[in-house]
Amino acid sequence: MALKMKRTVYLKKKTLAEARTIVSTKLAHLIHLGTETIPVIHSLGRVTAEPIFAKISSPSFHCAAMDGIAVKAESTYGVTEESPKSLLINKEAFFVNTGNPIPQGMDAVIMIEDVHLVDSQLAEIRNAAYPWQHVRAIGEDMIATEMVFPENHKITAYDLGALLACGHQEVKVKRKPRVLIIPTGSELVEPEQTNLNQFNSRSGTIPSGIIESNSYVLSGLIWEDGGDPIRHPIVEDDPFKIKETILSNYAGVDLILIIAGSSAGSEDYTRSIIEESGEVFVHGISMMPGKPTLIGRFKDRPVIGIPGYPVSAIISYETLVRPILYQSLHLTRTERPKIKVIPTRKIPSKLGTEEFLRVKVGKVGEKFFATPLPRGSGVITSLTKADGIIRIPALSEGLDENEEIEIELLKPVEEIFNTVVLAGSHDLSLDILANLLGRFYPPIYFSSHPVGSLGGILAIKNGICHMAGVHLLDPETGEYNFPYIRNYLKGIDLKVIHLVYREQGLIVQKQNPKKIKRLEDLLRKDITFINRQKGSGTRILLDHTLKTLSLDSTQIQGYENEEYTHMALASGIASGRADVGLGILPAAQAMNLDFIPVAKERYDLVIPSIYFEDEKIRKVLEAIRSDDFKETVQRMGGYDISRTGEELFNCGIRNVDCGTEK
Amino acid sequence: MALKMKRTVYLKKKTLAEARTIVSTKLAHLIHLGTETIPVIHSLGRVTAEPIFAKISSPSFHCAAMDGIAVKAESTYGVTEESPKSLLINKEAFFVNTGNPIPQGMDAVIMIEDVHLVDSQLAEIRNAAYPWQHVRAIGEDMIATEMVFPENHKITAYDLGALLACGHQEVKVKRKPRVLIIPTGSELVEPEQTNLNQFNSRSGTIPSGIIESNSYVLSGLIWEDGGDPIRHPIVEDDPFKIKETILSNYAGVDLILIIAGSSAGSEDYTRSIIEESGEVFVHGISMMPGKPTLIGRFKDRPVIGIPGYPVSAIISYETLVRPILYQSLHLTRTERPKIKVIPTRKIPSKLGTEEFLRVKVGKVGEKFFATPLPRGSGVITSLTKADGIIRIPALSEGLDENEEIEIELLKPVEEIFNTVVLAGSHDLSLDILANLLGRFYPPIYFSSHPVGSLGGILAIKNGICHMAGVHLLDPETGEYNFPYIRNYLKGIDLKVIHLVYREQGLIVQKQNPKKIKRLEDLLRKDITFINRQKGSGTRILLDHTLKTLSLDSTQIQGYENEEYTHMALASGIASGRADVGLGILPAAQAMNLDFIPVAKERYDLVIPSIYFEDEKIRKVLEAIRSDDFKETVQRMGGYDISRTGEELFNCGIRNVDCGTEK
Repeated sequence: MALKMKRTVYLKKKTLAEARTIVSTKLAHLIHLGTETIPVIHSLGRVTAEPIFAKISSPSFHCAAMDGIAVKAESTYGVTEESPKSLLINKEAFFVNTGNPIPQGMDAVIMIEDVHLVDSQLAEIRNAAYPWQHVRAIGEDMIATEMVFPENHKITAYDLGALLACGHQEVKVKRKPRVLIIPTGSELVEPEQTNLNQFNSRSGTIPSGIIESNSYVLSGLIWEDGGDPIRHPIVEDDPFKIKETILSNYAGVDLILIIAGSSAGSEDYTRSIIEESGEVFVHGISMMPGKPTLIGRFKDRPVIGIPGYPVSAIISYETLVRPILYQSLHLTRTERPKIKVIPTRKIPSKLGTEEFLRVKVGKVGEKFFATPLPRGSGVITSLTKADGIIRIPALSEGLDENEEIEIELLKPVEEIFNTVVLAGSHDLSLDILANLLGRFYPPIYFSSHPVGSLGGILAIKNGICHMAGVHLLDPETGEYNFPYIRNYLKGIDLKVIHLVYREQGLIVQKQNPKKIKRLEDLLRKDITFINRQKGSGTRILLDHTLKTLSLDSTQIQGYENEEYTHMALASGIASGRADVGLGILPAAQAMNLDFIPVAKERYDLVIPSIYFEDEKIRKVLEAIRSDDFKETVQRMGGYDISRTGEELFNCGIRNVDCGTEK
Repeated sequence: MALKMKRTVYLKKKTLAEARTIVSTKLAHLIHLGTETIPVIHSLGRVTAEPIFAKISSPSFHCAAMDGIAVKAESTYGVTEESPKSLLINKEAFFVNTGNPIPQGMDAVIMIEDVHLVDSQLAEIRNAAYPWQHVRAIGEDMIATEMVFPENHKITAYDLGALLACGHQEVKVKRKPRVLIIPTGSELVEPEQTNLNQFNSRSGTIPSGIIESNSYVLSGLIWEDGGDPIRHPIVEDDPFKIKETILSNYAGVDLILIIAGSSAGSEDYTRSIIEESGEVFVHGISMMPGKPTLIGRFKDRPVIGIPGYPVSAIISYETLVRPILYQSLHLTRTERPKIKVIPTRKIPSKLGTEEFLRVKVGKVGEKFFATPLPRGSGVITSLTKADGIIRIPALSEGLDENEEIEIELLKPVEEIFNTVVLAGSHDLSLDILANLLGRFYPPIYFSSHPVGSLGGILAIKNGICHMAGVHLLDPETGEYNFPYIRNYLKGIDLKVIHLVYREQGLIVQKQNPKKIKRLEDLLRKDITFINRQKGSGTRILLDHTLKTLSLDSTQIQGYENEEYTHMALASGIASGRADVGLGILPAAQAMNLDFIPVAKERYDLVIPSIYFEDEKIRKVLEAIRSDDFKETVQRMGGYDISRTGEELFNCGIRNVDCGTEK
C-alpha cells in the first residue's frame, strides 16, 4: 500500500454544542421522510404522519357492561325486595352477555346475580334499575370523528387497541429514515471472512486484519432509534471507490454515515470527497472520544463522517446522529436516567475537551461509587462493561475523588442495586462466580475491579467495595492476608472467607524455547520479563522471593513493564512481547503456554461483617460453597478447593478459634 | 345464543402481592426455553444462554494506533530536535496506517506529523519513541479465552461490536418465550372482518360486534418484553371449542393467555377448563382494573386468564405476565420512572382493592399536577392518553387533593416538561391547535382537561393549568368572560387571548324528524333532551336563555343527563339516546346531525401573564396566529376567525384600551 503524503488538516474544531446546532439547523431539514400506509397491527413504534380520527365510535353500539338481562329502566321503577316483579323474557327482558348489543327499546342491564329465573318465560327482579345502568353507551371510549392521535405521535402497544377499536386497520406513518452505513478501511475484514478454523484459537492470533464491527453496532443503534440501517460492505481506502459507493447509493437514502476516513491521516478521504460534491460544515469536534467527526452534505444528502475507533464511533453516533433521527421523526429525545456518584479516585481530564468517561458504578452502603474504565477509544469493552458515562465538561480539568458528580446510567438502576462490588486481585474463579450469581433470580451482578490485593484492602478501608480479593504474603511471618488486615483494617469488623489455593509460577512460551527453569533465569540477558503492577499479590510474592534468593530486580529486563491482570500478562507472553512472567496456572493454560510452579498461595475474600446482612452477599457465600462452583474451578486446573468457602479466623482479629495456617 | 345458568364463583380473592408470589414460584419454573444459535448480527436484545469467551484477542495482533512509521524504539533513543536521525524506509522504518500490523521487530509508532521525508529512502525523526508508543498491543481490548459476557446477559448494540471483535459470528441465546394468545367471546369480530364500507362512517355505528383488539395490544407488549407472541383467531364462547384450541396448541408454546372468560359470568369457561386438565391457583385478584384474572396450569403449561376489558387486560398483563417473561429470560425487571405529583382533586378509592388510576400529568410552575382520567376498564383511551399511573394501595380509601403522591410515568418526563395544560371548556379547534403544536421541534404537547368554562377559571385560580378555555356569558351584562375573570381571578395578572367566535345551537337528528325549531320545543313531552354539565359555558348559556324566555327547566325531559363534551353530547343524539341538545356546529357536522343556530359566542383563552415568559406558551400564541390554524378552523365551519389571536382588554383588568364588545 503506497502512502500518499498529502494530508487533510482539521478545520477549526467545533464544540459539541456548536456541532449539534449545525446538525439541527443545517442537516435535519435535508431529510424528507415521506409517508407509507401500513397495517395497524404492524405499526408498533412507528410515528403517525397525520392526525388520526375515529372512524367509528367505541363501543359502536350501546352494549351490556355485565352479563344479565337488558330491560327498560322505566319498567322496573318501584321494584324492591318486598315488591319484586317478574318480567317476560324476550319481551320485557332479554338475556345479554358482556359486550352484547342492548336490544331496541331497552336502556339498562340488571346483573345476572340479581335475577331469579322463575321458569323459561319469567325473570324475577328485586331491585329497580336506573337508565343506562351497566350499559356502555356508544362512544363511551371514542366518538366517531374525534381526533384520537395527533400527527407525530409514536404508536405504543396500547395505541394499537385504540386504533383498531375505532375502526382503523391501516395507518399512515412516516417512512423510517434510511441510513446508509459505509465502513471504509483497507485494514478491515468482514466478520464472516475471518476463518477462525485456520488458526489456533488458543494462541489468540490471526494473521492480519481488523474485524469490521462498527457498522453492526451502528445498525443496532439506528434500529433502536427507529431508523432503517442499510449496511454497505467494506470499501477500501481509495477515494475513487468511496466516492463511487456514495454516488451509486445516496439517492435512495436519507442519511449517510461514512465510518473512518474523517480523521486527519493520509488515507482520510471523506473530507475531500464531501467538499467536492457538497459542503463540509464541521471537521473535528472538541470531544473525547469522537474528535475526528465530520459533518457535511453530499449533494442534498446529510453526511456524517464517523471515527473508526469503536468507542469514538458510538459517541459520535449518539451525540450527533441520534438527534437527527429523532428530529426527522419529530420525536422528543429522552435523556438517560441520572444519578449522583462519587469517583473512587481523582480523574484528570483535558481542558478544552468534553470527555465521555465510561465508569463502573457500585452501590456500597448508602453511596454510589464510580470507578473509571480504560479511556482508550479502541476499547469497546470500556462501553460494554460500563454502567454509566460521566460527561466531563470542556472547561473542567477533571474530577476530584469524593466530589459528587452526576452520571448518565447505561443500565437500569435496579441492576446496580443488585451488584456486588469486589476490588482487589483478579482471579479467574471470579468469572465463574459471576456467572453463577447471574443464575439466581432476580439475578445478582458481579463487578470486579482489578486493583491488586493491596488496592482491595484499601478499597475496604475507604468503604468503596463490598469485598476484597487478596493473596498477600507477609514476608516477615510467611502468613497470608491476616497481617495486612491487622495493619490496614484495624477497627473494621470483618470476616475472611477462603476462596481458593492456587499455584503461582513462571509462565513461559509453549515448549519453553528459552529453557527457563527458575527465578534465577530472569536475570539472563536473552530474556525479557513482564511484570504485575505494584501492590498486587503476585508482585509482592515476586519481590519477596527475589529478595529471599538475593536476586537484584534492577537486573531483570522488562521488570518495569506492568500488567494489571494474569490474563494480560499471559497474553503479553503469548504475543511474543515478553518471554516470561509470574502468574497463575489457569492463565497459562488459557493462552496455551507452559508453566513452571513457584509457590502455592491462599486467595481469600475480605468482607466487612455489616454486609452479611445483605441478601446479595449471602448469595455470594451460597454460590462459593456450591458444588457447581467448586467443580468448575477444579476443572480449570491449578486450584485446590479443599477449604473453599470456609470462614478463616485469626487471633489478631477475633478471640475465637484460630484457623490460621502456619 | 342459549344462556347457560350455571355460573362460576370466584375463589377467595388474592392480593396482587400474593398472586405475584404464586406466579413466581408455581408458574415460572414450568417454562423451559431451551436455546438456539443465531448470527451475532441478529442477536440484538437476545439473552445469552452460556458464558461467552473471547475466541481471539482484540486486537489480534500488535497494530498501529496512529498513521505514521513503525520503528524499533531502541533505535530512536537519544534522538532530539537538536540531534535528529534518519531511518531507512522499509528497513528501520515502515509506513503504517491506523489498524495496520506492526512489522516484525518493530515496537513503536511515530506519528506521521512528526516525520520528515528526506527522500523515498529516508525518514527523519526529531524525537525518541518509547517502547509500545502508539501501538495497540494484542488483547488491549479483549484477551482470547477471557469471559466477555456471562450467561443471562441481554445483548446490547454495543455488545455486537465486542462479540464480532473477539471472533464470534454466532451466539447461543435463549429461545424467546412463545406466548399463545387466545381471544374468546362470541360478541367479538376480527378487525379485518369489520367492513367499514357497509355503514355510514358519519353515523358512527356498525350493526353489532366488538372489534377484537386486546390480542394485538398484548402481542405488542409481549414483543417489547422479549417474547414471541402467537395470536390465535377469535374462539367463540364454547367450552369445547376453547378446550380444543388449547389442546391442539399448548405443546408448542411456553405460556398461554386466554382473553376473557375468566370472570364469573355464565359464559366464563376458563376456570372449569383449567380445573379439568390442570390446576387453578388464583381466580380473582383484589385489584382494579384486572380483578377477573385467573392463574393456573393446563397440564404442564402455565395459563393466565386475562380479563376482557382492554384496560383490565393490560394491567393484568403488566402485573402478572410481564414478570413471568422476565423471569423466564432471567432478566431484571426495571420499574418505570417515578415522580411526585399533586392530585388536582380528591380521589376516593375502594378499600381492600389496589387501584391503578390513570392520570394526565402537567407541570405548571414548579409543581407536577395529576388529573384522573376515566376509571372505566373499558376505556382504552384512559391509557393511551395517560401520562402516568397512580397505584392506590388496597388499604387506602383514596387520595386527598394537594397530598403529594408518587406516580409511575408512562411517558418520558421530557414530554411532560414540554406539555401545555389547558383546563376549561372543550372546543374542537383545540385539537387543531394540539396538532400544530406537535409540528414545532422539539414538539410541544397539549393536554386539554374538559372541566367546563367555570372549572377552567378555578383551575387558573388554583394554579393547576397554564391556560383556561372559557366562553362564559354574564347574564347581567351580556358580556363574555371578563365579568367572571373580575369576580374569580381578582389579583391575578393575566391576559385574555381571543380564540374563536362560534355558533351554539340545537343539535337534532338528521332531517330533524321531531321538527324542533326553537328552545320552547324542549318542553314538549315527545322530546328527550341531553344536557351539558353544570359550570360549562354551554350550560350557562342554556340556563340564561331559558330564563330569558321564562321556560321552566324542570319541565325538560332529560335535563339531568349531563355530558362533558360537545362530541359526547352529539354522540348521544346520533345514537338515539336523546333527540336534542345544545352544542356547537362542528360537533353536529362531525356526527352528521342537523343544527339550529341559537347564539354566537366568544371563546377565549385566559392565561396568567407569568407564563408568557415560557417558550411553549409563546409557541401556542404563534400557532394560534398562524394562517394554518385559522384556515383549518374555518374549513370546519361554524366558526368566525376574524379576530382570532388578538389580545382582548377590559377596563376592569387593565387601564388600557378597552377591547370589550358590547
